[in-house]
Amino acid sequence: MTLHGKPLIAGLLAQWAANNLTAPSLRAVNPATGETLEPAFIEADEAQVSAAVEAAAGAFAEYRRRTPAERAAFLDAIGRHIEALGDGLLDRASAETGLGLDRLRGERGRTIAQLRMFARLIEEGSWVDARIDTADPSRKPAPKPDLRRMLVPIGPAAVFGASNFPLAFSVAGGDTASALAAGCPVVVKAHPAHPGTSEMVAGAIAAAAAETRMPAGVFSMIHGRAPAVGLALVRHPQVKAVGFTGSLRAGRALFDAAAARPEPIPVYAEMGSINPVFVLPGALAERGRQIAEGLKASVTLGVGQFCTNPGLVVGLDDGDGKFADFKTEAARLIAQTPPGVMLYPGLRDGFVAEAGRFEAIPGVSHSGGPPKGDGPAQARPMAFSVDADTFLGQPELSQEMFGPSTLLVTARSREQVLAIAANLAGHLTATIQGNADDLEQWRDLIDVLREKVGRLIFNGFPTGVEVSSAMQHGGPYPATTDPRTTSVGTAAIERFVRPICFQDFPQAVLPPELHDKNPRGIWRLVNGERTRGEI
Amino acid sequence: MTLHGKPLIAGLLAQWAANNLTAPSLRAVNPATGETLEPAFIEADEAQVSAAVEAAAGAFAEYRRRTPAERAAFLDAIGRHIEALGDGLLDRASAETGLGLDRLRGERGRTIAQLRMFARLIEEGSWVDARIDTADPSRKPAPKPDLRRMLVPIGPAAVFGASNFPLAFSVAGGDTASALAAGCPVVVKAHPAHPGTSEMVAGAIAAAAAETRMPAGVFSMIHGRAPAVGLALVRHPQVKAVGFTGSLRAGRALFDAAAARPEPIPVYAEMGSINPVFVLPGALAERGRQIAEGLKASVTLGVGQFCTNPGLVVGLDDGDGKFADFKTEAARLIAQTPPGVMLYPGLRDGFVAEAGRFEAIPGVSHSGGPPKGDGPAQARPMAFSVDADTFLGQPELSQEMFGPSTLLVTARSREQVLAIAANLAGHLTATIQGNADDLEQWRDLIDVLREKVGRLIFNGFPTGVEVSSAMQHGGPYPATTDPRTTSVGTAAIERFVRPICFQDFPQAVLPPELHDKNPRGIWRLVNGERTRGEI
Repeated sequence: MTLHGKPLIAGLLAQWAANNLTAPSLRAVNPATGETLEPAFIEADEAQVSAAVEAAAGAFAEYRRRTPAERAAFLDAIGRHIEALGDGLLDRASAETGLGLDRLRGERGRTIAQLRMFARLIEEGSWVDARIDTADPSRKPAPKPDLRRMLVPIGPAAVFGASNFPLAFSVAGGDTASALAAGCPVVVKAHPAHPGTSEMVAGAIAAAAAETRMPAGVFSMIHGRAPAVGLALVRHPQVKAVGFTGSLRAGRALFDAAAARPEPIPVYAEMGSINPVFVLPGALAERGRQIAEGLKASVTLGVGQFCTNPGLVVGLDDGDGKFADFKTEAARLIAQTPPGVMLYPGLRDGFVAEAGRFEAIPGVSHSGGPPKGDGPAQARPMAFSVDADTFLGQPELSQEMFGPSTLLVTARSREQVLAIAANLAGHLTATIQGNADDLEQWRDLIDVLREKVGRLIFNGFPTGVEVSSAMQHGGPYPATTDPRTTSVGTAAIERFVRPICFQDFPQAVLPPELHDKNPRGIWRLVNGERTRGEI
Repeated sequence: MTLHGKPLIAGLLAQWAANNLTAPSLRAVNPATGETLEPAFIEADEAQVSAAVEAAAGAFAEYRRRTPAERAAFLDAIGRHIEALGDGLLDRASAETGLGLDRLRGERGRTIAQLRMFARLIEEGSWVDARIDTADPSRKPAPKPDLRRMLVPIGPAAVFGASNFPLAFSVAGGDTASALAAGCPVVVKAHPAHPGTSEMVAGAIAAAAAETRMPAGVFSMIHGRAPAVGLALVRHPQVKAVGFTGSLRAGRALFDAAAARPEPIPVYAEMGSINPVFVLPGALAERGRQIAEGLKASVTLGVGQFCTNPGLVVGLDDGDGKFADFKTEAARLIAQTPPGVMLYPGLRDGFVAEAGRFEAIPGVSHSGGPPKGDGPAQARPMAFSVDADTFLGQPELSQEMFGPSTLLVTARSREQVLAIAANLAGHLTATIQGNADDLEQWRDLIDVLREKVGRLIFNGFPTGVEVSSAMQHGGPYPATTDPRTTSVGTAAIERFVRPICFQDFPQAVLPPELHDKNPRGIWRLVNGERTRGEI
């Protein structure tokens, strides 16, 4: 498949940009080899951003009226068109990201499964949270009106592709799938590290839109490396919500721009997390080695490039030497892990710089490394070690180091363990390794941790985010800008909707979800009772 | 009942402020007479704000663990203690607001009913949106974990009392009731126009907290007129959400302060709305006079001091003179309505200034007025009239004029009606007056309006906001800062919560809502199916 390097706006390859010889462009780099990949991808200017968003706004009035079955067919078709790209997609994604084909095959499966999950969710239909309070004309002192409320799409959504999941959190990733499912057109800004992968997937979405006769403006994709491109997208008055996964700095900049608009809009930015793991004494005594092996696997999985990477491990040295042994073993296992290719050279260079910052702090020791491996983007896993006094006194040790590393913290007392928990900022997850006794004795720790995170894990590791109804992938700031929503699982559709209430309207004007006969057969709250019945 | 004028912080009257003779203070003014009312109320300083919020943060860990039945008992007790204040509460509220005793009696009933509604909601319990995906240890390639997700309280909430509902949107109003129901401690900043009413209700809440053995920090109230007090409250790092009803200027200032915090927090500000009414030709022909009478009643109800006051009426002059007749009749009825006392002199002065601004615009005519009535706060109802060309060319005619007035706009064509709708900013409501033919012929108008508002009303008037499950009281900016939530009805509890997911935890650690046996008997989503059953 020949890549064209052009933005895809409302189903068309925007020609004016390609004809503008002075337009800035970007190229992908193979992080394993340093090779620059063809072609050049045109960076968007304000005119492209406007064209994409205005096409989305124009398509919204039509797209939101499509039936759930029609939108579901569109989502299913996107999945089929992604599959039809075959190994060519995986090869290009691997060349652009350094990720292996097996990982990418799995991620493609997850991406398609997400699209299908949202298709089934909207076919079933109860997610609209329909509520009906029927009228009582005889009520005194005033008659009671007929009120019918449901969730409706909020409007065009801007989605930013993430570097670390070039398929599942990128062009056709969770935010795009949930926004399209909700009834919102989407404008994607592709991540500049995998523009070719993005182009291929964007083509699949456009083909699916054409096949299922969706308005062309339902999807557009632009490229851009400069912050100005993303900011222009977020500032466009017709954009009504933003999904982003990436760094704290970039996510906060988008949030600030959105909050400063004449009409502020929600920004769902997932930005960073160190995903603390607390290894409690009972578990340590029973299966310290097994926990060390699990930790090593979680820290080094995917060269540590997951937002759920466990970057902090806290244990209690109660004099029996067990946590010291655990640390030694975990550090040894991590240090033995071969280096891996990170997603792009800049990410590896950032990891090296962060590791250097940690190493320079008095009291911090390390195993493994040096962090800089061979080639333009190889990183070597590292385990850092520090005591709780030093950790609590050095706020920068609590900052995320993106890559294959973790920090092992030894507390001298139960109080220090609790102090570390209480001092945590917001994170996506926290993990408890413990046995039944530990759980009994450390209830206060769990009570503290649940206020800090979106997901609490028992005797597992944070990497591996299940895509299902009950997942919560989010958490208090700075893990995200909005702890009230999730970026993974069916509840992610709530990001792109708002409620509307119809008062005293005849059936003919109401959406089918609110008709007396309940033709969609959905669960509704009717006069306070949950039912799938008619009125 | 003797009023003390002190802040109520965690169940105690803060003495240090009372002992500070230089502390600024405020007094209420009777808007009917201009009389200054005793006593002086101490304005909060930063120390008071911190004390209140820190008490709330301290109480949160305990309060959020109280069972739903315990929290419901607290809410019910608040209602009883408000009732026990008897006519003294109504007398003081009337003196501070100029509202009549019947209106205030009704508002008290609504306030108590709201508290009880949330008590029943949390007793029933399904609002937590519990979702359970059970484990599958044999799944390949990776075992499926057990995931259990529910909504939990977000943390201490700051609530700003509104001037226009001294009971129902004030100290124990909807935001306080929903936040307390969700499990969030509340710090109220009382509205400076009714400090005595606020003190009495705050005392009722504190008494209810003591009676039901809630942690004292679950509720505090401070006074303040200076914007700095409210800003200090919103900026306090332990405040996690903000509820506000008032002006666009004040609401936006709070929103901006919250967005600029190191940790941004949600602000639910309801700020203003002109609640457009579209009078369609069929309805006009059938019952123009009746619509004019209903409009007059809605415009002048409560001296026009409702956020749902219909401030804009649009009709089509198709040459038969019917809309001209309607306008004449509506303007006559409004102009005949006697003046009324507004909530405080500043509000009346604002109304007079806004009316003067309208009158000065060429092409705007009016009936009724002069807007300034007798006494310090009397306002006289007014009806303004303008053609659509002038209206579309003068953006300031689209701004809310708070008080007993409306603007009647005559369109020359169907296209002008649609242009007016398309140009609308966000509002709480829009209303269609029409018959079956109108609905058929004006589908495009309804399609435009539903993107502009939170509630669409057919053949009614926007004043009168039902408190129930299906109500949506909110809307796109600038009606509110967050169209995703409501300030009225059971769904308002969603403002003060976030989801948390427990992965692979034993039953003993899980909240009862997530236990296999479903001891709370709530509706849950178990492996994608809605059920009240056990697992």
